[in-house]
Order: sequence, then C-alpha cells, then structure tokens
Amino acid sequence: MFAKRIERLTSSLVRDILAAASRPGVISFAGGLPAEEALYRPDPARIQDLNCWQYGQTEGEPQLREAIAAEARALGIACDASQVLVLSGSQQGIDLVSKLFIEEGTRVLVEAPAYLAAVQSFRLFGADFLPVTVDPVAGPDAGDFNTALEQAQLAYLTPTFQNPSGYCYPDAQRDRIAAALDAAGVPLFEDDPYRELAFDGAAPQPIVGRLQRAPWVYQGSFSKTLAPGLRLGFLIAHPDLVPHLTRLKQAADLHSNRLSQHLILQALQGGLHEHVAQILPIYRERRDAMAAALERHLGDLVTWQKPVGGLFFWVRFKQPLDTHALMQRALEAGVAIMPGDAFYTAPPGFSCLRLNFSHSTPQDIDEGMARLASLLR
Amino acid sequence: MFAKRIERLTSSLVRDILAAASRPGVISFAGGLPAEEALYRPDPARIQDLNCWQYGQTEGEPQLREAIAAEARALGIACDASQVLVLSGSQQGIDLVSKLFIEEGTRVLVEAPAYLAAVQSFRLFGADFLPVTVDPVAGPDAGDFNTALEQAQLAYLTPTFQNPSGYCYPDAQRDRIAAALDAAGVPLFEDDPYRELAFDGAAPQPIVGRLQRAPWVYQGSFSKTLAPGLRLGFLIAHPDLVPHLTRLKQAADLHSNRLSQHLILQALQGGLHEHVAQILPIYRERRDAMAAALERHLGDLVTWQKPVGGLFFWVRFKQPLDTHALMQRALEAGVAIMPGDAFYTAPPGFSCLRLNFSHSTPQDIDEGMARLASLLR
Repeated sequence: MFAKRIERLTSSLVRDILAAASRPGVISFAGGLPAEEALYRPDPARIQDLNCWQYGQTEGEPQLREAIAAEARALGIACDASQVLVLSGSQQGIDLVSKLFIEEGTRVLVEAPAYLAAVQSFRLFGADFLPVTVDPVAGPDAGDFNTALEQAQLAYLTPTFQNPSGYCYPDAQRDRIAAALDAAGVPLFEDDPYRELAFDGAAPQPIVGRLQRAPWVYQGSFSKTLAPGLRLGFLIAHPDLVPHLTRLKQAADLHSNRLSQHLILQALQGGLHEHVAQILPIYRERRDAMAAALERHLGDLVTWQKPVGGLFFWVRFKQPLDTHALMQRALEAGVAIMPGDAFYTAPPGFSCLRLNFSHSTPQDIDEGMARLASLLR
Repeated sequence: MFAKRIERLTSSLVRDILAAASRPGVISFAGGLPAEEALYRPDPARIQDLNCWQYGQTEGEPQLREAIAAEARALGIACDASQVLVLSGSQQGIDLVSKLFIEEGTRVLVEAPAYLAAVQSFRLFGADFLPVTVDPVAGPDAGDFNTALEQAQLAYLTPTFQNPSGYCYPDAQRDRIAAALDAAGVPLFEDDPYRELAFDGAAPQPIVGRLQRAPWVYQGSFSKTLAPGLRLGFLIAHPDLVPHLTRLKQAADLHSNRLSQHLILQALQGGLHEHVAQILPIYRERRDAMAAALERHLGDLVTWQKPVGGLFFWVRFKQPLDTHALMQRALEAGVAIMPGDAFYTAPPGFSCLRLNFSHSTPQDIDEGMARLASLLR
C-alpha cells in the first residue's frame, strides 16, 4: 500500500531516547536543546501592530530576506535577497534539497559521523552514501574525501562546529574543499546552524563563499540563537537553484509562518547579536563544566576534544563497549546519552557517544557524568 | 544534476497570476484569500505567559491535539488525540500523504476539476491520475468513479464545497463512496479546508467517518477560519498510518510552530466558533454580490451554480473561448481571473473559470465583472 520509500523510513532512535529523556528527573545529554535560560522571548507589545495574518509569499517576507542576505554578505557569501528562501526550520531545507537532488541511487558525500536527521532524509529519498571520516582533531580524511568526490552527485557538509563531532574546518581546509568541489562540479549543501555559538572566536567564512563554479545551497537556523519554538530557518542558494527550491517549498507548505518571520525580523533589526552575546557565557560555562566532569569522572576511559562551538562533546571509548546497552542502563539511572553509531551510515568500528552540554546546569552535568562513571566501573 | 522529479515540477500558473493580481488597483478573483476583514488577530496580551520557545513534539502540542480530536468527534469522526498530527498548514499534509503513498506510477483517483496544489504535489512524486468528472450540480460521475476505483491505489477527494467546483457531496453520495472505498480497500485522503464556511446550513459528516475498513487521512485547516499567516492545519489518520506520517513530519520540519499552536489553541478554547459566526455574513454578502454581478453582466454567456460554501464560483462558458488569452486581457484591464483548465489533469473540452469572491468588496466584485463583460463583448 505504501510507497517504497517508507521501507527506508528508519525508526528514529533519537525520537525514542528524547521521549525517555524528557521524563522528570532525567539528566539529559541526549538531545540538542538550547539552554532554557538562553531562549529568546518576543516582546508581546511588538506583536500589536503586526499585519501578518493573510497568506504570504513562498520565498518569505521581503524585509526578512533582505536582512538575512545582509547577514550572509557579512559572512562572505556574495548574495542578494532574491537568493534567500525563508524556511519552516532548517530541517525543511534538508527536505527541499533532498527533493531537488536525490532519487534512488543518488550518491551523496556525507561526513562520518554526520547530522542524523539529514542522513535520514537523504535515505528516505533513496541516497547511497559516500562517507568521509571526520576526525575530531584532524577533520575530514583527505583520501576519503577525494575518493568520494569522484563519484558524488551531491556533497553535504556541516563544517562549522559539526554535529556531532564538534569539529570546525579551518580556512585552509575550506579553501581546498571549495577548489575540489569547483573542479568536480559537485553541488555543495552546507548546513551551518551552530555558527553563532562560537565560544573561542568567530568561525571561518563558509565554504560556499569560496566557491567559483559549483552550485551550492547554504542554510542556517534561528533555533540555536533565538528559539526553536519559532521554527524558522533560511537557505541561500546559487541563483540557478532558487526557482526550483521555491516551487518545492510552495508544494511543501505554501509559505512559512508569518508571525515568526516578523518576530525574527524584529530581532535581526535590533537585538539578535546582543542576545547571542548574552547567551554565550551560559554555553561556555556548561561546555567547561562538561569538560571538567569528563576529566574528573571518565578521564581514563574516553578521549575527547573540548569543542570550540556548537552544543556537543564527541566522546570515544578507549575500549570497545556496547553503547546501546549503556544507554539503557544509563536511562534507568536517570541519565540520557546518545550512542555515537547512530551518526554513521556504516558502523564506525569503535565505540562513541554524543553528549549535549547545553541543556543541563553545571551541577547536573557533573552529577550525570558521575552516574555514567559508576555504571562503567 | 537534479532528481528526475524536478522535470515534473510544473511552473505554477497560479503563482504567476497571484503575483500579478497583488498589484495595486487590480481587482482579484484569482486567488483564494480570506477577506481581510475576516482575519483573526490573536490577543498580544495572551502571548505574555506562553512557554512555547523550546523544541516541541513532532505530533503537536498535546492540548491542541486533544481539542482538534474533540472537534472531529463532533463531526462524526471516531478518533482520539493520538491520531492527530498538527501540520504547518494543510499543504504540508498533502506533502506527507504524497510521500506515504505515491511513487512513480502510483494511480491516484482525483476529482476533475481538483485542487491544483494537491495535483501538483502528487505529480511531483510521480502519480498517474484517474480523473473523475465532478459536475457542479450532479457531483462525481458514477461511471468514472467506479472505473477509477478499480485501478486506484489512493483516492483524493474534497467533498465539502470543493475547490474549484463548489460542489458539496450530499449524505447519500458520501455513503455510497464510503462503501465503495471499503469494498475496494482503497485509502481515502479527504481534504476538508472549507467546511466551516457553510452559508446555507452545515455540511454533511465527512466521508472518513463513514468508512468501516479502508485506511484514511482526513485534514483540515485554520487558514480559512482564523488566519493563513499562522500557517496551521491538522490531519487525523487511521491508527495504522499515524507512525509513518509522524516520522515523515519529523523529517520535514521536526515540528510545527509552537507559538501558532498556542494561539490557535486559545481560539479553540473560546472564540473560534463565535469568530466563524461573525465572518460568515461577510462571505455570504460577497457570494451573493458575485451571483448578482454574474447574472447582471455575464448571464447570457456563462452557466454557474451559487455555491453553498467555500470561496469560489465555478463558471462555464456556453461557447468555447481561450481563457488564457482572456486572463491576459483581463489583467491589462485590472481584473485577475483563473482559467479553469488549470484544475484538470487532462483538458476538460470546454472553457471555464474559477472566480474567488471572498477577497473583494461587493462594489469591486460588480466593477470587476463589468470589466470582464466589456472584454467579452
């Protein structure tokens, strides 16, 4: 009865864990939720005069598109507002780009590990994966990358504070990748939701800003900097792709929520960067707390890098371990963790975890890590 | 470079016309916009205490799902909240149902004429169409329907104030169709956005409420009763379909806008039905104005039925006419109209228009129709 793609609609481990993790009393390192204290709350008084109740434009509110284009130009992406498509969350961008490029057998270069919900969407549309190992210290493996690029029809990269590895591609690597994509003519889909959450200095220019010839889609999100509940993201695309993506967006939801668009436009016109400056210390403190807790409780069992941005620690066990069994036992002990193999399209051959630090207090981070340690010993 | 489905991504005549129709001074019968005077404006004071800024549940806010299920039960759909999926506009439901059922060659029973944006989505995913002629007076052709049902893998119907024909299936017809779908085991996708806009008495129970065995998805919208800018709709599905649709929704946008969900929950808890009662006289007056204007200016050239609900007149010319040329000339004369053949998967063999009455004042309706008449004579 169903379309064949439904067989590829994987049951989401993440959904199941997140449901369990939201039980009262559970310390959750499993999700990727912003700190409650960091959520942006729109000013109700500024809703009074809005006129955003009628149908709107598929591409987004014109002023918001202008504001997003201006932010992108400041990052080194040559673009104008006509290339901006407002999204109902950047997950929608993954759906639209999947529809544009991917059918059964389309070969997609992905990082290993990679953002899970992107992999799931690509798989739903029939992608075959060309994984490129991303080391938390050295970044993408050059041999893997070149081999994959020879066959790839689309490359999906999250070069800035990658979820889950935390890795941030430096300038030289970005230049090399841009040149390779240009030479191969492979479209780049660059996903950049964590850029503003930079704890130790700003991130390098996006890779799409370094391309000369290859087609590209760049996307960002307001969920990490403002509020996920407002469900708004954006994509910016090479001009040749914009008409197709716009029609795909129209078929998906006609247009995005206009109230959220106006609230976020208000934030962009004054307050977004101040808000980010206010929330960064909260995240930095929690990141440092998790680093200290890992050192204190698990230092002899795991290796990890302190992330310079984003929301996650990527933790690798020195000895192989059944992380799914650990996850179950940890949940029973009131700690939610995410097994790392969920982020691979093929088994990684070692044991790892993704641990979120943004949604727990420093005290809970230490307590959760202590509970994990007692399970492991 | 692109997936094959992009070849099926039809350039949208509607988009082009709507862009032209929004120019100042143009009287538009082309779109399907609610009256500006009828738009629901949320009370900013009630936003103050909302806590809806974090990530939410894919299925929707629990209280909203309960409220929607209660409304559906009152319509005669046996369901509970677990079967409700909140949507980012009911267009998203069309995308999700397309993903669930349709791949290349899937045979879909559709009305002729049918809702254009549904046909476009089905086509994008590769549907072959089995059209059933819907007469504005007699409804769906029984012969067409039975022939189509023998081959169909999915049936898409908008039985209540159908867009564009305006037809409303009576009880006996709904019963017969439900029995036929049950016998054939063909899933029914019932799209019901106009139900509340009933000018001459409530619409009959939805067809899905009459099914015994066939799988089903029912969907509705808050865009016609409250405000399109809040971009919220819902679907209710047979329990076997809910897990798949939920995962498809998660891959599309994680969850719907939480602020809109809470604003619409507030409306459902008090005010929605009063709001609808207030706006119905506006629509009824405009419908009657268009009926009078058609009679006055075009009575000898066209046939039409006064719609008992919804937003459109379906107008058929007594003599064949190039409606696309008329559309161009009308635009130059400051009137936007929608050629009727856009709503068919195969040419209908006669000339027709869809005319929207909800977004123009009675004065503008008369003036627009006078301009059309002068072009036609």
